[in-house]
Amino acid sequence: MFDFEITAKNNHARTGIFSTPHGNLITPVFAPVGTQATVKTLTPEHLKEINASLVLSNTYHLYLRPGDELVRDMGGLHKFMGWHRPMLTDSGGFQVFSLAQTRKIDDDGVTFKSHIDGSTHRFTPEKSIAIQENLGADIIMAFDECSDPNDHAYTRLAMERTHRWAERSLQARTRSDQALFGIVQGGVDMDLRAESARFIASLDTPGIAIGGLSVGETKQEMHEALDVVIPLLPEDKPRYLMGVGTPEDLIDGVARGIDIFDCVLPTRLARHHSAFAPEGRLNLMNASFARDQNPIDAGCDCYTCRTFTRAYLRHLIVAKELLAGTLISIHNLRALMRLMEQIRHLIGNGTFEAHIPELLSLWSNNAKRIKHEG
Amino acid sequence: MFDFEITAKNNHARTGIFSTPHGNLITPVFAPVGTQATVKTLTPEHLKEINASLVLSNTYHLYLRPGDELVRDMGGLHKFMGWHRPMLTDSGGFQVFSLAQTRKIDDDGVTFKSHIDGSTHRFTPEKSIAIQENLGADIIMAFDECSDPNDHAYTRLAMERTHRWAERSLQARTRSDQALFGIVQGGVDMDLRAESARFIASLDTPGIAIGGLSVGETKQEMHEALDVVIPLLPEDKPRYLMGVGTPEDLIDGVARGIDIFDCVLPTRLARHHSAFAPEGRLNLMNASFARDQNPIDAGCDCYTCRTFTRAYLRHLIVAKELLAGTLISIHNLRALMRLMEQIRHLIGNGTFEAHIPELLSLWSNNAKRIKHEG
Repeated sequence: MFDFEITAKNNHARTGIFSTPHGNLITPVFAPVGTQATVKTLTPEHLKEINASLVLSNTYHLYLRPGDELVRDMGGLHKFMGWHRPMLTDSGGFQVFSLAQTRKIDDDGVTFKSHIDGSTHRFTPEKSIAIQENLGADIIMAFDECSDPNDHAYTRLAMERTHRWAERSLQARTRSDQALFGIVQGGVDMDLRAESARFIASLDTPGIAIGGLSVGETKQEMHEALDVVIPLLPEDKPRYLMGVGTPEDLIDGVARGIDIFDCVLPTRLARHHSAFAPEGRLNLMNASFARDQNPIDAGCDCYTCRTFTRAYLRHLIVAKELLAGTLISIHNLRALMRLMEQIRHLIGNGTFEAHIPELLSLWSNNAKRIKHEG
Repeated sequence: MFDFEITAKNNHARTGIFSTPHGNLITPVFAPVGTQATVKTLTPEHLKEINASLVLSNTYHLYLRPGDELVRDMGGLHKFMGWHRPMLTDSGGFQVFSLAQTRKIDDDGVTFKSHIDGSTHRFTPEKSIAIQENLGADIIMAFDECSDPNDHAYTRLAMERTHRWAERSLQARTRSDQALFGIVQGGVDMDLRAESARFIASLDTPGIAIGGLSVGETKQEMHEALDVVIPLLPEDKPRYLMGVGTPEDLIDGVARGIDIFDCVLPTRLARHHSAFAPEGRLNLMNASFARDQNPIDAGCDCYTCRTFTRAYLRHLIVAKELLAGTLISIHNLRALMRLMEQIRHLIGNGTFEAHIPELLSLWSNNAKRIKHEG
């Protein structure tokens, strides 16, 4: 279990197979986000149809609602949400720091108030692991602290705490059927990033996550951090860039050696009527689409593009019909799945590096980032 | 086209095949309502999976948004919404009288203000038919006036106007690939109902609708009206009871000789977390379902019941996830489809009449009616 076999390489980019209890992940892979045990507005059948293999869900959200013990008692997250392919949960750290109210951090853990009802809760590394063991995802995360990248002293403190918490997370685990990843932090301080990469790489984990990016730093800083961190990571473990990305970020990340991505972008954009299209991101509410008989993307094989025109999608949006979000989510996710399929194909035949400029140019109009809101 | 072949009879109840340009309807049939060219929160694939054969859409809504000429120019309603089985549009009359603001009725037609933006519009029989021809459903309705059942003088006036408008609707039509049904009105005055049935039956139409029921009258009054009207209708034309019904109404209606039903009930209930279940209608938000590992109905073959527990559905509801409405809609619609399949089977083997008490008893806890809101 949790073998990682690299099947092709193209400079830093690689394809691989990561084996999990719920099947193999063919990497590089993009994971749709199912925050509350559902990828918003989509059924598991839709996710299978777009060829998703890995779905992420959020420890913080599920702990608060419906509760991790309830999920455990219902047979675990896979059974609960009807998704029988691989799943990943985060540690809850990011949401505690970005979403919860009035938090107090100490070396042992974090006390916070729920964003739902203001009730007080406490996460420690041990608690985060216990929750994630109750949820039962295939890939779980060490508890970490994501700091403000602009505060250097705090960034070091948070990084050091993250390292202690990674050790405690490893100690706390009791299940052997979950792959626990440590998380590299260090903000945009490249010395801290290197220090964190070396430390997390030294731990006995089947994979390594890179956190604290896509949280307000520039794209250049993100690239620099990846260029510092990745060469310090073992070749034979999958690398997961958390909460990233845009189509451009996926191309850039794979080029630097990233294997796993997740992001709310495609589904969140969809719920705001925004669709990935060849000519750039479209706001389908725009009146110019009222009589547009084309699908979002004539080259896309998704259910939405095979079945519906832009005119119909615009009608649904204007008429406030929720089906619009479902249909655009299907397309946006499938667009990223197709991009990843294309990238894997190009790595496989050794031409990915040569195609990077073309891929970036194709997607440049869809590249605008949005803030990761958790 | 529009042949109606009766395939079995059981006292007044019958099964039949009504042929339309988009395929045969096996009757008795229940039509999900797709008010704005979408059955709310469901894709056409979901509708095929529940084995829906006929979908209704609303002339009033589509005229206002996105506009019937736009739908025509996009290739018609079937192509626009991706539903290639039979469709039915109403005349717009019911919504003008129940939903639009500040309406003025005269013998020629109705002037009303849009409930969306207050703009002024006018429907006449000719206009209603022109709109419905632009939309392009297989079954269309004559323009009618639905009166307050408690106002006898007005009910007569509205009925007489409905008769004139039915004649004008027939005169106005230009397409031979749409089945235009006249509508029997007359409120709860049984003399008027009989008069209306005789008049509408005398018109040369391939089917007959019964309107103005399920609008505030008692169940007894509805039954009485059906018992008066149906014997006056030709045997060899399908009979459509508009905007009805509950599971109980479907059983009672078929027993009296109705062939076609539509109602927003199953999907509207679903969006309010209410599900048809063996023990009666369930409010799935109830805390008692938090750890309920059963599907809504263990005897149901729908995607929702095959895949998800009540506990999961309750979680989605509490977490305000829109997927809840989708999944419960699939179940509620499939429950009525299964009921209709069962009814057709029983008529086919000659035992429907004998099973009516059992069917009514099985569904008695799911029978509460809701007001038809248009």
